[in-house]
Amino acid sequence: MATLDEFSLIRSYFANPVAPQMLGVGDDAARVPMPAGSQLVACKDLLIEGRHFFPDVDPRLLGHKSLAVNLSDLAAMGAKPLACLLGIGLRQADPQWLEAFSGGLLELARLWDCPLVGGDTVRVRTETVISVTALGSLPEGQQGLMRSAAVAGDDIWISGYLGAPHVALLALKGDARIDSDLLARTRSALEQPQPRLTLGQSLLGLAHAAIDISDGLVQDLGHVAQASQCLTQLRYADLPIDPRLSGLPEEIRTEAVLRGGDVYELCFTAPASRRQDIERIGRQLKVPLACAGQVLDGHGVQVLASDGSIMNMNSPGFDHFRESSDV
Amino acid sequence: MATLDEFSLIRSYFANPVAPQMLGVGDDAARVPMPAGSQLVACKDLLIEGRHFFPDVDPRLLGHKSLAVNLSDLAAMGAKPLACLLGIGLRQADPQWLEAFSGGLLELARLWDCPLVGGDTVRVRTETVISVTALGSLPEGQQGLMRSAAVAGDDIWISGYLGAPHVALLALKGDARIDSDLLARTRSALEQPQPRLTLGQSLLGLAHAAIDISDGLVQDLGHVAQASQCLTQLRYADLPIDPRLSGLPEEIRTEAVLRGGDVYELCFTAPASRRQDIERIGRQLKVPLACAGQVLDGHGVQVLASDGSIMNMNSPGFDHFRESSDV
Repeated sequence: MATLDEFSLIRSYFANPVAPQMLGVGDDAARVPMPAGSQLVACKDLLIEGRHFFPDVDPRLLGHKSLAVNLSDLAAMGAKPLACLLGIGLRQADPQWLEAFSGGLLELARLWDCPLVGGDTVRVRTETVISVTALGSLPEGQQGLMRSAAVAGDDIWISGYLGAPHVALLALKGDARIDSDLLARTRSALEQPQPRLTLGQSLLGLAHAAIDISDGLVQDLGHVAQASQCLTQLRYADLPIDPRLSGLPEEIRTEAVLRGGDVYELCFTAPASRRQDIERIGRQLKVPLACAGQVLDGHGVQVLASDGSIMNMNSPGFDHFRESSDV
Repeated sequence: MATLDEFSLIRSYFANPVAPQMLGVGDDAARVPMPAGSQLVACKDLLIEGRHFFPDVDPRLLGHKSLAVNLSDLAAMGAKPLACLLGIGLRQADPQWLEAFSGGLLELARLWDCPLVGGDTVRVRTETVISVTALGSLPEGQQGLMRSAAVAGDDIWISGYLGAPHVALLALKGDARIDSDLLARTRSALEQPQPRLTLGQSLLGLAHAAIDISDGLVQDLGHVAQASQCLTQLRYADLPIDPRLSGLPEEIRTEAVLRGGDVYELCFTAPASRRQDIERIGRQLKVPLACAGQVLDGHGVQVLASDGSIMNMNSPGFDHFRESSDV
């Protein structure tokens, strides 16, 4: 680091209290006791400046989101957080930026009892790089909510609402169709997602497959369809479209709902016989849950329009969209 | 990716067989059963192009080293590898490069039974970024070989030999004092380090503190001294200097031995009463082990010259050296 060496940087900004049996930041590796009989769940996401976040993003929100996107992956497995590690590559050590970034990350870590136990800080020449690893646990004998576990006959459920993060992203990229008022109302959906950890854990033993919608609903459901070798069919009219999108032109709304990424909600499948159990969980956790499709024999993803026709999801715009959907 | 999307890239290059109870690459998160009663050990290192490796490094060796440096951290805790995750940021998806990189990484992963179970691939604009997380286990009740566990009266031991990686690095950076023959003979020490995992596990319950020498002997022993609140005193004459350095000017040799990083050997402390046990382990594992110092009351690091005087380790060149020791 230019103004602060690696070791004092870690001590100053990333030291945080851990449980007595845990060994945290500052050794070659961290030590994390596991709940008796549990299985380890682990995931990691890389966030690159200019691609996954804007250079001028509020560092506190970036710290929050860096961990949140990983906790969302744990949620999509039904896992309980145990601990996290942070690798960060910075051009320089800006104390104000670091204070805010670590503050946002550690606040979310405390909320979910997921202490930061280790990692690495390095210097980069150009793009800031953030790599978080989240570690969690699954009870003995539980497989977790695997993408490959969907079964023909399952309902498809979606938590929360769709579309707001994409609308905020369009606005931040200068799309004149989104006004500043709508940006102000959708921005937190993009920049401060809340992982659905309690929901994920509640679905263990009840739901079959689950995934978060970080790459967009159609793409992520495509992964479920492929892994489970089935057809996942959505009913557009039943999708939980974010009410904040109501004034937008139809083509923006459809795109945001079906293809918009950065939605850290869960999309999961469950037997139709468990519909009441799932509705009860939604009420208990105060999480909106929409039953918006079904799993069928076949392959791929279909979206049914209100008139029962199949919407065309294979337009050539898809890959292009993926490219431009990153920051 | 420019020529290959993320999902086919993962399937093509990074899918690898995992144990039946394990869930590997391709879901939101990986699932790794833990040995009964064991504790989790986790570490992660970031490698940045132009800083930790040369842009034209052999990608197979880079794949090897990306995992090796993390396994070395597990070794320094006495942990047994369980699984690893890879985050990689690439400018483009070059099939030849990816084939070689993943080949090198997965070969070392197989050697140590440490399957690649997940991760993330993204595109970057400039520097290639590699972030590996290694997961390991420690038997129930074991604290691991913590930096804070050195005790006054301990011997200081070093495995293998010191200095070769630094000499190779100097040569690759164009230092005319190192001839091409010496580069050829030292290069694998820099580019293909072998983590001391079996040694680390054998030292559990026998050694006190341990660390790998990735940042250089004096700096890393300084971490042990600080964490253990003691003085670590080395005897220069007893240091295991790599015989390949014998023809070099004394100032290069001293620098390489005391400050040269990228030495994935273990430096550990153990009670003097266990000297014979440690020598026996060295013979059994065929790992050279040098007893080269002792832990005393006090603080910091000292190196004793042959005449018993204390070598000056606090020269202002130290930080500067650290800067230039990176690629």
